[in-house]
Amino acid sequence: MTEPLKTGATIGILGGGQLGRMLSVAASRLGFKTCIFEPGEDCPASHVANRHICAPYEDADALRSFADACDVITFEFENIPTSALDILEKLRPVHPDRKALRVSQDRLVEKAFLNDLGLTTAPYAAVDELEDITQAMEEIGLPAILKTRRFGYDGKGQVRITDPKDAQSALAELNGAPGIYEGFVDFSHEVSVIAARNAAGDVSAFDPGQNVHEDGILRTTTTPARLSASQRSDAVLLAAKILNKLDYVGVMGVELFVTAGGLIVNEIAPRVHNSGHWTQNGCTVDQFEQHIRAVAGWPLGDGKRHSNVVMENLIGDDMDRVPELARDGACALHLYGKADVKPGRKMGHVNRVTGPA
Amino acid sequence: MTEPLKTGATIGILGGGQLGRMLSVAASRLGFKTCIFEPGEDCPASHVANRHICAPYEDADALRSFADACDVITFEFENIPTSALDILEKLRPVHPDRKALRVSQDRLVEKAFLNDLGLTTAPYAAVDELEDITQAMEEIGLPAILKTRRFGYDGKGQVRITDPKDAQSALAELNGAPGIYEGFVDFSHEVSVIAARNAAGDVSAFDPGQNVHEDGILRTTTTPARLSASQRSDAVLLAAKILNKLDYVGVMGVELFVTAGGLIVNEIAPRVHNSGHWTQNGCTVDQFEQHIRAVAGWPLGDGKRHSNVVMENLIGDDMDRVPELARDGACALHLYGKADVKPGRKMGHVNRVTGPA
Repeated sequence: MTEPLKTGATIGILGGGQLGRMLSVAASRLGFKTCIFEPGEDCPASHVANRHICAPYEDADALRSFADACDVITFEFENIPTSALDILEKLRPVHPDRKALRVSQDRLVEKAFLNDLGLTTAPYAAVDELEDITQAMEEIGLPAILKTRRFGYDGKGQVRITDPKDAQSALAELNGAPGIYEGFVDFSHEVSVIAARNAAGDVSAFDPGQNVHEDGILRTTTTPARLSASQRSDAVLLAAKILNKLDYVGVMGVELFVTAGGLIVNEIAPRVHNSGHWTQNGCTVDQFEQHIRAVAGWPLGDGKRHSNVVMENLIGDDMDRVPELARDGACALHLYGKADVKPGRKMGHVNRVTGPA
Repeated sequence: MTEPLKTGATIGILGGGQLGRMLSVAASRLGFKTCIFEPGEDCPASHVANRHICAPYEDADALRSFADACDVITFEFENIPTSALDILEKLRPVHPDRKALRVSQDRLVEKAFLNDLGLTTAPYAAVDELEDITQAMEEIGLPAILKTRRFGYDGKGQVRITDPKDAQSALAELNGAPGIYEGFVDFSHEVSVIAARNAAGDVSAFDPGQNVHEDGILRTTTTPARLSASQRSDAVLLAAKILNKLDYVGVMGVELFVTAGGLIVNEIAPRVHNSGHWTQNGCTVDQFEQHIRAVAGWPLGDGKRHSNVVMENLIGDDMDRVPELARDGACALHLYGKADVKPGRKMGHVNRVTGPA
């Protein structure tokens, strides 16, 4: 068991987007400094960090200076190159660790891990060539989704298959990357559990939120989620099971499909998660601080929900609505300071407080 | 009427202490960058700002570069040298403006201003020499407090007079600075109103909080304050009157004594205020964001209180309590990242959420 990190220590964050930005703010509340490692200049996290090391993830020297500057290292995205981890984890503690990354970086490994834990996932099959797809169509059925095993996010690297004729064109979309064929899940809605675990093994989960996606991107998360008491309890216990099995340290997002037959795990993300942004205005300790507490070896906050919140992402031109949202007393704005508005780009989010919990 | 500041713009903050730090975080939520002007290195605000210009307030060139880097300028402390203002206000809008600073930088001017508005203050008299004190003793009575007219904070530059014999030693404590003799006010408790006004003239006040001081330093602020409905309404209206009279833009802290005869204004501070820190965990929009909204020409948030909060300052060795406070689920910690713990130094604060409002 390591000592809790002392206030004044520096937390290193790989990735300088909005998640790194909000992690950095949370770190400041606990008196920590932050150092961001991110190849992009003027990135959102750099605006609120002590230091920004602007270098590619392949730059070994820069990674070593980064480790030198930090007491502990975490990240805002799961697709950290293994070569970077190889360097960093020799020099400083990295939380969450390689085990969690290995599982979550590959959809196939992730599903096998979850099934081994006794958790239900969509039926799936590995896809390397056309024959794998035709076989999966027979065994799993249609419709289905063909995804790349690695590096997918916000609906990227995914193609829907509804007809056997689609097999060839779907495979072509993968550009030769290893794929996974996922069978159709007949779910009524999607929820996610944001759970945290610290080095002492304490686990704390926020209330599940209910997610709505559009074009593969999260649109809204609403709390409380539509769930029975037993579903709610199942969701939280299931998340805790995952974190414990991985000896996980940090916050994890667990996306679940709600079906007549029970909860099905869609995917896990070993980091703070867009569907947990509501906690900033719904809880005394939000997901960002919970993550910082965990990686710093601190006790977790209790994360109780004091308010009901609807989180809505502000994507691309949604930024035009900011003046109107700023006039709405129920709305808490969280903008990411990104210079260029682009279609599909997450520019900020708004937490609409709809009442006491 | 100026245009609202666009997200991505830079807000300049004079002063890099904890107030500047929390203003900087609030600015980031609205997508603004911040530039801190502060002579001290490694200051709390610099940890969460885009840029820190480390130079004395007398450095005209540095002040000009600061103005160049900013779209609008504000401050975290009222004792800005006039020479700095002379330079800055020619180059960029400064909010709150000189009018508010002139009134609040001098206790004598402040009291006269408040009385002119029809508001009650402690009885007072200007003190330049011993004879002024003896005359004030006769007219105003004892006990009393002798204060410097300018540059006082956290009980510094104040001496209590209980006996006519104290006059000489009290005057000596002022070190030749102009003073003010303030008569004793028989109050039951102190409350403060944190109020905001934007350029459009909208005013919004947070619920009053009840303050307890120790050794001249704020110890706790508790919401809700012990006030009747009419006192609560009086407190808010009185604050609004002050802001409107000054055409004020920003957040102001108004400290009030509650007496059997009504509310008496103790002092005003033209900035975010220690007694408003509870809003971080009691309201959707806190005092820091309210201030940023005002100086950016944005609409104000409504600042409704969703939770009851007891704010406690963590002073000096109180930092030893952090591990214990971190384990308490009702507590939200806000630490300032100050490297050295010193007696009497504000190191952080904790907001204890005591229940829904």
